Order: sequence, then C-alpha cells, then structure tokens
Amino acid sequence: MGIGIDLGGTAIKGGIVNHRGVIQEERRVKTQSQMGYDRVVSDLAALINELVQLSPEETTVGIGIPGILSGDGSTVVSCPNLNWKNKALKQDLEAVLALEVLLVNDATAACIAEAAFGSTRGRTSSVLLTLGTGVGGGVIINDRIISGAHGVASEAGHMIMEENFYDCNCGKNGCLETFASATALIRYCQKQLDEGVESELKKDDTYDAKRIFDAAKAGDVLALAAVNRLAKYLGWAISNINDLIDPGIFVIGGGLSEAGDFLLNRIQASAKSCLTYPQYAMPEIVLATFRNEAGLIGAANLRQFI
Amino acid sequence: MGIGIDLGGTAIKGGIVNHRGVIQEERRVKTQSQMGYDRVVSDLAALINELVQLSPEETTVGIGIPGILSGDGSTVVSCPNLNWKNKALKQDLEAVLALEVLLVNDATAACIAEAAFGSTRGRTSSVLLTLGTGVGGGVIINDRIISGAHGVASEAGHMIMEENFYDCNCGKNGCLETFASATALIRYCQKQLDEGVESELKKDDTYDAKRIFDAAKAGDVLALAAVNRLAKYLGWAISNINDLIDPGIFVIGGGLSEAGDFLLNRIQASAKSCLTYPQYAMPEIVLATFRNEAGLIGAANLRQFI
Repeated sequence: MGIGIDLGGTAIKGGIVNHRGVIQEERRVKTQSQMGYDRVVSDLAALINELVQLSPEETTVGIGIPGILSGDGSTVVSCPNLNWKNKALKQDLEAVLALEVLLVNDATAACIAEAAFGSTRGRTSSVLLTLGTGVGGGVIINDRIISGAHGVASEAGHMIMEENFYDCNCGKNGCLETFASATALIRYCQKQLDEGVESELKKDDTYDAKRIFDAAKAGDVLALAAVNRLAKYLGWAISNINDLIDPGIFVIGGGLSEAGDFLLNRIQASAKSCLTYPQYAMPEIVLATFRNEAGLIGAANLRQFI
Repeated sequence: MGIGIDLGGTAIKGGIVNHRGVIQEERRVKTQSQMGYDRVVSDLAALINELVQLSPEETTVGIGIPGILSGDGSTVVSCPNLNWKNKALKQDLEAVLALEVLLVNDATAACIAEAAFGSTRGRTSSVLLTLGTGVGGGVIINDRIISGAHGVASEAGHMIMEENFYDCNCGKNGCLETFASATALIRYCQKQLDEGVESELKKDDTYDAKRIFDAAKAGDVLALAAVNRLAKYLGWAISNINDLIDPGIFVIGGGLSEAGDFLLNRIQASAKSCLTYPQYAMPEIVLATFRNEAGLIGAANLRQFI
C-alpha cells in the first residue's frame, strides 16, 4: 500500500494504492494556486492527513509535480502551471505532517506506474514518453528513476531534433515536443491548411488531436501526413535514446497514445529505420497501461524506485 | 590492484594497475587477428597468465573490446577491427584461465578510468565522448556502467543529428560521428577545398585532424569553420543527452581532445546555446585525464562499476 498525490494545475488528486496498483480510496480538491503557495500547501496537507487516517501505517507520501525539481528532490524549481519558482515543498509539508514527503516529476511518476504495475512490469530499465499538450519523459535504469544531477533528466521532449516552423514554449527551436505532441499535430495541420492544402479538417472551425487521428484513419491525406510526421520524429528520438542507454523497452503514454496501434506501428517502423543495430537490438515499443491515474499510482510507489 | 587488458586491432596491451590508477607492470603483444580467433584467445590467455604470476592475488581480469558486446557481457557480438562476430570470449577464456573474465566496450572502459582516477573522480554519474577516427561513448549512472539491454548503450556516436553529405560506416546518414570525429573534420575540409574554398590546407597533399586544429588556431578560415562545426554538433549532442539523463559532467577524450581549451570552450558555448535550462542546469564539460592508457586502466577497475 502507498499514498500518492497527483498535483495538477486544476486538481489535487490523492489516493491509497494497494500492492496490485489499484486505487482503493481517492480524494480530490481544486488546486487553488491563484490563492498562493501557502494555500496549496495547506490543502495538500489536509488531503494527505485525510488519507493517512484511512491508512495509518503509511510512513511516506509521494507527490507527482508537473515541473522541475532540484537535484535532491526537495524543492520545486519551476512549475509554470502553478506559477511556482523555488518552493521548498518537501520541507514545508514535512513541517506540518508526520510522514516523509517525496517529490517526483509527474512523467517520471507515470514511468514508475508502468514499471510497478503496467506495461514495463518486471523490466529493470525503461523509458516512457507521454504525448499530450507537450511531450514528457520518464527514465528508469536498474530499477531507479533517473532525476539527474540538477533534476532536469527525463526532459526528452526538449531534445532538439531539427529546425521547426515555430518555437517551443521553453524558448528553443526544434524541440521534440514541437514535432510530436498534440500541439505539434494541430499547428502542423493549421499551417498546411493556411497554405491551401486540401483536407476534410478544413470543414471544422477548430479540431483537436483526436479529430486529426480520426481523419488520418479515414484516409485524409493531410491528417495522415501529420501523423506520419509525428511518428517519424518519435521513432528518431527513440533511436537516439536507444543509442545512449538501450533500455530494452519504450512506453508511449499520454492522450495521443489512445490512437493505439495506428500510431504505435508507425513509431516502431520509424525507430527501426533509424536504429544503429535494428537486426539484434530493436527495443520493444509498447503502449502505456495507465492514463490519468498514472501519476497518482506512480507517486504512491516512488519509495521503491529511488 | 587490478589486471586490465586493452584488446586493440594492432596490439593487445595488458597491465597491472594499482589503487591510484597507475600502471605498475605492462606487457604487450601484436594482435594476430589474421591468424584467427583461437590464436588471439591463446595470446590473450598467455598474456593474462603472465600478469597473474606478477600479481597472484587477483581473481578477476577486465578486457576492453573495440566492439559491441551482448547484453550479458559474455559475447563479442561484433568487432570489425578483429573481424569477429558472435564470439563467446568470456567462456573461451575462462575455460583456460583460473580467473573471472569480464568484458567491456573500450570507450566504456575509458569512462571508468576517468570515474575511478581521472576527471570525473568522485562523481556518481558521467558521460564520456571519445573523439578519434569515430566518436565513442561511455555512460556511468549511479556508479554503474550502462551497457544496455542488448549491450548497445553508450553508442553516442550514432545518434542521428541531421542529414550529412556522406554516410556513416554503420550505414546510416547523419550520425554524430560524421560531424564530430577526425574523419568528419578531414572530409568536411576536403569537400570545401574541392568546391574551391581557399585555405592554407590546400598546400598539403594530405592533412590530419591535428593539422586542421593548428590551422584553425592560426586563423585559417576554413579550418576554423570545420572546428566550429564539430563543436556545434558536440554541444548539441551533449545538450540532448543532458535532457535525458542530466549526468552533471561530460568528459571529452580521444585524440582530438589534445586540442585542449580551444576545442573545449567551443563545445561548452554550443552546449549552453542548446540547453533547456542553461541558467541552473549547465553540466560541467571537461577534458579527459587519460589518453591511450584509458582502456587498460578502466578495464582493470571494471568490477567496481558493474
């Protein structure tokens, strides 16, 4: 059993997760970040205390954070969703709680959920890529999460691939997430439509990534080109990561992974075409087991992966 | 103390390395790969036995190999310099020796030498890039070498950067080593000269990487462009690796590292321009301590890093 928290921009979700990775109890409150850091800390503490009363034997709580932590995992260096910079969250929570507080990046938490109970269960090393608004990453090597000397490991979405027609939110140009996220898909289609390319997407005022995948599956030429482009860059990135750490297995998670084998097959083909040793060192590339609950489930199991 | 072997294409070097990383005794024989695998194995065994007689308390020998090993480290999957494929070297040597035999990629061995006694001493994680005819890599995370699920980790030289005007020996196009090796420097200069670019290199029938660095330092415009191009891709690659594992320190080794700060400063500037968080997560980038003896010294200390 373990207590995990998923601290998101709109909600704080907390839960008690059993030894099979099932959430036994779940509580959630709105994230009142507009009311300041102290308010969020006290809401977190109240929610954790509520869960501890349901599971009093727990001595640790893990919290997944959508941002960058310090190398020692004690401080939230940057969390744009909550407008936080350099907040000593571990210390501030431990001052009011009787538990050890462990912090983890939310994509790394999702990587833990897969390794403990999901698609990479039983594997000592794995890399997760979460495809959503951006591209997040999680890296586990020899059963330990890789947070890095400065806490900025697993930022696979910011690996620079090549020049792109728009800049990344991080300020750089060419980041993987500008080629391989929902945002990337939508912006690429919009640019092509603006340039006069024909597509059934033109009928819609707005469209999301799911609409693009549906159109691609139905044979729309532009939508298919957009999906193929996304898969090309993901396969290329997977191949480069494989050259460096050869984890044996990659997991594709996040909202876009709901496109299933239609996306997965394309990513696998692209990776194979970029790999240095495809004949004897092709990694497994699989879909994630967990979706929205990944962060909470992983955070509850953080202790075993540090 | 430890016994290390550096198995190269022209010579087998063996040595006894003390606890300060100093080679106390060294022996070498010619690599008779043209006489077949069995001959090289028997020469290796004889050399190791000679060293064991000088240091009878040793129970392990580490061998650095210029090729790809299997994931379990027992088999040489591919070693082009010796024309070997799928050779069970660990088993074949242990059958005739009274020691445990451990195999390691030679660039990984060099990474160990730096971590045990050189530029990354005392650091738990580090990445080595060796710049020679090609680009090799070594990765240590949490005091353990990263060999990968299939033994193909640390092949940083084959990360695909972007399209290049010639193919890599591995068969791919765009590999880091086609931008950032001695071969890359020479081929780039030759291509520019063929296209009519002026340079003092034109006076020479042939020139090596050292000549290009010397010309660059003297202000030759083409040579300087070649060095800046090499540094640009290395900094970019370091930044991408940093996004993934944030090791805290990178080491530049191999023959080209003799260009010293002239090269290092350029690599650091390029990395800084590509990093996602240069303001608080700039890795150290340093020159290697060891050169030709790195493989032997690292191999002798392999046991402590697996």
